[in-house]
Amino acid sequence: MAEIDPTVVAHVAEIATDARTASRQLALLSRAAKDEVLLALADALEVATPTIVAANAADLRRGRDRDLAVGLLDRLMLDEARIAAIAGAVRDIAGLPDPVGEVVRGGTLANGLEIRQVRVPIGVIGMIYEARPNVTVDAAALCLKSGNAVILRGGSAAGATNLAIVTAIRDALVAQGISAYAVSLLDEGGHDAARALMTARGLVDLVIPRGGADLIQTVVRESTVPVIETGIGVNHVYVDAAADLDSALAIVLNSKTQRPSVCNAAESLLVHESVAEAFLPKVLAELGSAGVTTHAGGEVSEFADAAGAAYGIATDADFGTEWHGLEINVRVVPDLDAALSHVRTFGTQHTEVIVTQDRAAARRFTSEVDAAVVMVNASSRFTDGGEFGFGAEIGISTQKLHARGPMALPELTTTKWIVEGDGQLRT
Amino acid sequence: MAEIDPTVVAHVAEIATDARTASRQLALLSRAAKDEVLLALADALEVATPTIVAANAADLRRGRDRDLAVGLLDRLMLDEARIAAIAGAVRDIAGLPDPVGEVVRGGTLANGLEIRQVRVPIGVIGMIYEARPNVTVDAAALCLKSGNAVILRGGSAAGATNLAIVTAIRDALVAQGISAYAVSLLDEGGHDAARALMTARGLVDLVIPRGGADLIQTVVRESTVPVIETGIGVNHVYVDAAADLDSALAIVLNSKTQRPSVCNAAESLLVHESVAEAFLPKVLAELGSAGVTTHAGGEVSEFADAAGAAYGIATDADFGTEWHGLEINVRVVPDLDAALSHVRTFGTQHTEVIVTQDRAAARRFTSEVDAAVVMVNASSRFTDGGEFGFGAEIGISTQKLHARGPMALPELTTTKWIVEGDGQLRT
Repeated sequence: MAEIDPTVVAHVAEIATDARTASRQLALLSRAAKDEVLLALADALEVATPTIVAANAADLRRGRDRDLAVGLLDRLMLDEARIAAIAGAVRDIAGLPDPVGEVVRGGTLANGLEIRQVRVPIGVIGMIYEARPNVTVDAAALCLKSGNAVILRGGSAAGATNLAIVTAIRDALVAQGISAYAVSLLDEGGHDAARALMTARGLVDLVIPRGGADLIQTVVRESTVPVIETGIGVNHVYVDAAADLDSALAIVLNSKTQRPSVCNAAESLLVHESVAEAFLPKVLAELGSAGVTTHAGGEVSEFADAAGAAYGIATDADFGTEWHGLEINVRVVPDLDAALSHVRTFGTQHTEVIVTQDRAAARRFTSEVDAAVVMVNASSRFTDGGEFGFGAEIGISTQKLHARGPMALPELTTTKWIVEGDGQLRT
Repeated sequence: MAEIDPTVVAHVAEIATDARTASRQLALLSRAAKDEVLLALADALEVATPTIVAANAADLRRGRDRDLAVGLLDRLMLDEARIAAIAGAVRDIAGLPDPVGEVVRGGTLANGLEIRQVRVPIGVIGMIYEARPNVTVDAAALCLKSGNAVILRGGSAAGATNLAIVTAIRDALVAQGISAYAVSLLDEGGHDAARALMTARGLVDLVIPRGGADLIQTVVRESTVPVIETGIGVNHVYVDAAADLDSALAIVLNSKTQRPSVCNAAESLLVHESVAEAFLPKVLAELGSAGVTTHAGGEVSEFADAAGAAYGIATDADFGTEWHGLEINVRVVPDLDAALSHVRTFGTQHTEVIVTQDRAAARRFTSEVDAAVVMVNASSRFTDGGEFGFGAEIGISTQKLHARGPMALPELTTTKWIVEGDGQLRT
């Protein structure tokens, strides 16, 4: 690997050191003070709408010139309504309980020592992400509320937009007596800036990558700072023998098509063989009408033919693919065990769904499937911090350490044990 | 770095794959079943006492031939009483609540979805540790109770002892209908076995190193499996202006001398200048009588001279050293801010102690010191899973992600969100 440009390393180290100092200020703020800052920040974003929209228009022009995909351009685009919604999310976060200071557990020991485990901020958090500019604001607001300083490294496609947003945020912070280094943007240094951020061990406490599989894997591989891995979802919907087939049809379509580009969309459908004849022709036809391409396991073809549905033959590679679009793998399974085994082999431990009216099958599925979120009779699309009531999310963890599933305020804290005594000694 | 012997890699991969299968069995055991296994395991260890003691005698002989330090030989030694104590710890763990299945939080969303975050086992855990054979049993018992399979890599000095212990454990497991691969010992392959374990990404979910600084840093640097860093403690006792000096004297002596070789011992004493004259001659004399060598900051010398205490001059390197023995750094500080700043510069975020009767000073210290455990008026030696009421500990985390401070049963779990609905779709 090429050496990182030393001037970029020094620049990032300087920002991280200032962020550390800011984090010590943030850690001691009361909830009232933090909420006031967040409300001021929401107002400042709305006031800055013309500036942000103008900067965004420049990013969009550059994106069109570079032939960015329409979907990406849409995710990049900000208008007055979207900025108002983003500011609204900041106000929602202000309304949530402060995770800092929460007593997780505690008690008095036999020797009279009083011990309690209390949530405290992590310190300095690095965010490395792609085009969506709402992530800039969500990350800043969640980190502020949880008492952390954040260093943002957004995608270059949103460079002007992110600069306009962070300028508005920092002006609002300074007006409230908070260090501007509570929220920093790494807008120079190209790729090396991201690499310097993820190797600033000791200066940065945690790096969260958010974006496509390539970005996430690069960060997991190259980071020497602790990482929380987010978001690759090869999610299954298993339609059990005892499923309500109308509900199953709706759940499959919603999980696959309601927003196919995101990590909580379904990529594979598993159907119990006893309902295959009744269910498959219907679901294949509906998926086809919705523009979804089918990658069918061998057993599926007779039903697909009956439905007059076009399909390709699914390979093992297909079963492990996060399509990110209107494509789905379909397989018939002989029983629940086979469904569990398929999920174990091809799932990414993100979101797994069973559709069933059978209590025993539901209990086995929720117990035995090892994933961040396991659902019974609901769309996979509900794996989301906003939907779970967290106000926003800083990502969806697919790892097991520290946090699993949608991450928001408590996930941005660590803990500290406070022990109070009156001279206790160990004997 | 030299390539790892491929036959060792294959051997470790095979064990880890069997451990994964065993972990699926363990994850579904009821609390009653796990406790029964633990009690049988405790009995089996006591029954195997003659075999274990004989194996231990062979390890001790080899250790003496290799001129192992007396302290290390003592930590390695097992007799009937120590084995009975180890078996007792296993019975204690059986008596603790099951962390698996604990609902961490949850509720019903506006759309009727019922969500709950539930503790589940992590899966397969690798332990890499040095001589103490009680760690073998503690780790096996804590992992079993938390539903995890464990792969143990103990120090070669305890090779025969660990083999005798794990053989007894596995026999007891199999007699209870549990896979022997719930607890595995890597007793071949030399150094490469440890390296293969810490790079078995995807097969092993977590590696916990436990031992000296070199061992821990090697694992942190070379592991590609997630690691929880444990145990380097450059811990301070700060004697405030408002300290009860008799209590301070006892706390300093207990923190430094009660067991100087362990990570929760104190390495540095900070004394507020307003009590330096009253306190330092006394504490230096008592430390001297206890055989403790003093590394004194410049301001300390006049008091040391007055006390007739021998001392060396402390360097910055001394202030950052974990002495692991009867040595201590001493410095006079002008105020609480200087004490906080010293702790921030030289501490390792393990355990920090203030001795004071001043409520405001205690509150500032507990709020502003960033460490796993912050104590008021108590010996640093209380940072310990057993002392905290956890039954035992698998290590003391000095990192911020996942777990911080003494780790036992809840720290050996991750969580899973279970979402139950009746056909909810996202709109």
